[in-house]
Amino acid sequence: MAAATSRDVARAAGVSQPTVSRALRGEPGMSPQTRQRIQDMAAALGYVPIDRGRSLSTRRTGRVGVVAPELTNPFYPQLIEPLRSELDAAGYRPLLVPERLEGDDALRVLADGSLDGVVLTTAVLGDQLPYLLSARGIPVVLTNRELDGAAFDVCVADNYRGGYEVAQLIADLGHRRVAAILGPASTSTARDRAAGFRTGLSERGIPLPADIATHSDFSYAAGFHQVSAMLDLTDPPTAVFCGNDVIALGVCNAAVSRGLSVGDDLTVIGFDDIPMSRWDVFSLTTVHCDLGEMAHAAIEMLLRRIAHAEHPAQRHTVAAELILRGSHGAPRDLR
Amino acid sequence: MAAATSRDVARAAGVSQPTVSRALRGEPGMSPQTRQRIQDMAAALGYVPIDRGRSLSTRRTGRVGVVAPELTNPFYPQLIEPLRSELDAAGYRPLLVPERLEGDDALRVLADGSLDGVVLTTAVLGDQLPYLLSARGIPVVLTNRELDGAAFDVCVADNYRGGYEVAQLIADLGHRRVAAILGPASTSTARDRAAGFRTGLSERGIPLPADIATHSDFSYAAGFHQVSAMLDLTDPPTAVFCGNDVIALGVCNAAVSRGLSVGDDLTVIGFDDIPMSRWDVFSLTTVHCDLGEMAHAAIEMLLRRIAHAEHPAQRHTVAAELILRGSHGAPRDLR
Repeated sequence: MAAATSRDVARAAGVSQPTVSRALRGEPGMSPQTRQRIQDMAAALGYVPIDRGRSLSTRRTGRVGVVAPELTNPFYPQLIEPLRSELDAAGYRPLLVPERLEGDDALRVLADGSLDGVVLTTAVLGDQLPYLLSARGIPVVLTNRELDGAAFDVCVADNYRGGYEVAQLIADLGHRRVAAILGPASTSTARDRAAGFRTGLSERGIPLPADIATHSDFSYAAGFHQVSAMLDLTDPPTAVFCGNDVIALGVCNAAVSRGLSVGDDLTVIGFDDIPMSRWDVFSLTTVHCDLGEMAHAAIEMLLRRIAHAEHPAQRHTVAAELILRGSHGAPRDLR
Repeated sequence: MAAATSRDVARAAGVSQPTVSRALRGEPGMSPQTRQRIQDMAAALGYVPIDRGRSLSTRRTGRVGVVAPELTNPFYPQLIEPLRSELDAAGYRPLLVPERLEGDDALRVLADGSLDGVVLTTAVLGDQLPYLLSARGIPVVLTNRELDGAAFDVCVADNYRGGYEVAQLIADLGHRRVAAILGPASTSTARDRAAGFRTGLSERGIPLPADIATHSDFSYAAGFHQVSAMLDLTDPPTAVFCGNDVIALGVCNAAVSRGLSVGDDLTVIGFDDIPMSRWDVFSLTTVHCDLGEMAHAAIEMLLRRIAHAEHPAQRHTVAAELILRGSHGAPRDLR
């Protein structure tokens, strides 16, 4: 048995479809008998109004899509949790799209009228999806990652500043042979963190040689394998900046598997402050951004965009804060 | 601008709504001129058919809801990934519901006609949601967790056998002071793993004293804090079975923070074989279930249920396999 629609109720009650909607929303303009008949039919058919309490005429569905195709990266569940609770507080239900959709597939899922707006968590540079959605009149907010020169509402961490502060820390500790495993060049997060890091090192006269400054996936395996190759060099690095914590945890594990002590033998710095970075076995020095603030700002922007399609695009930057734990130290020759 | 509907296209083209659907599905029965006019109007209005290539009359939407309210437990992203790819292979798009919904809220999201079926990943004992959905004619499959005595399609790991084999291993190693941190008693997974573990220990004459056999959240914090209390006892356990890997990783970190060596000083066994359990710093002995097989069987059941509402309920059990890594060993006094 497929679910009943308002059309089925209208047919069964012998009224029009708008009358069904008005009856079930409790709006005036019909006899109590008609309203009762419609309510009885709706109950008998098991019809559930999509958005009780909201105006069907403005097509508000009370649902927001959250596109999150990288759920196995533990950063994303941490971002989705406050997005979910912000949407809940605003009376919206989140629907997660756990895959990267393009073109017609994306429009069928995201632009079919079932969503009041869309939050994108993993835009990549050159991504067409926000343009596609926006052209269909779907309110869109980019969170965590952004696009260049595009007039979208955007809420991101201060990735440049975070990378810059990591460089300052590494320089202050006395490291001169410094490596970086930066994440995908196609993401604004990796790019901006890398730019801040390069500038910070450069201001202190520290090189970042191309053979030990690599782009990679944002993955544990990338961190593990890339640092292993670097540690095999005749002149291995004494400090590694990682584009995110997941890469950094791969680096820490590779170091441990070689009998190195993270902090003493190799300084490892991450970015994101995911829960695992706080675990005793890692105690990862990393960059924290308040994801509660990011989610709050993103949903506020989306609600404004839903209410005012023509509002000028806004940009909100969440501060980046260096968190000093146990994975950094001076290079051995300075101790 | 809200998204256009087939009704808008029908009005603009001066035809009925079913004619719009037939035109855009390429069905015969109209002049080429009419079809072209409808196609042009649909393009001009930006109308996207919900389910091109599927029959609107059987209300197949091509979408399946996956209820996954525990995404910050890294097990769930690992289960969602193969569910997503199985659905994709079957021509369905997954929509994740990242919250625990009940009653009317659940029906508004899951039983509004937008989904062809629903996969529940985190049923708790006594849960009404599968009954509610089923009563509305929504095909439902329970995966990972199940309910007692309910006629639903179910796909679960052999949790009892897994718990039993862990008990055998711990007994074979010579442990006599054995603890367990079992996860929530309200879940079939924790309950069945615990039952198998208790039976296995009991067959070998090993007690499982109530003060060191506790239920808890399936969380890192629960593992960390509960094992810390146990290790403070005058007669601390020498082995701990954990209801899932996340608990076990909390136990490992608590042990490390006290200067204990996991495997040498304390045997720690998990359940699930999440990616982190393979990391060098943990090398966790645990129980593996093939989540690809679980997802494949679950989606196969769901597709059959969508096609045949009256098909008898099926149950599929995925084998549990003990994975021996580095977190187990004989108690110190036997070495």
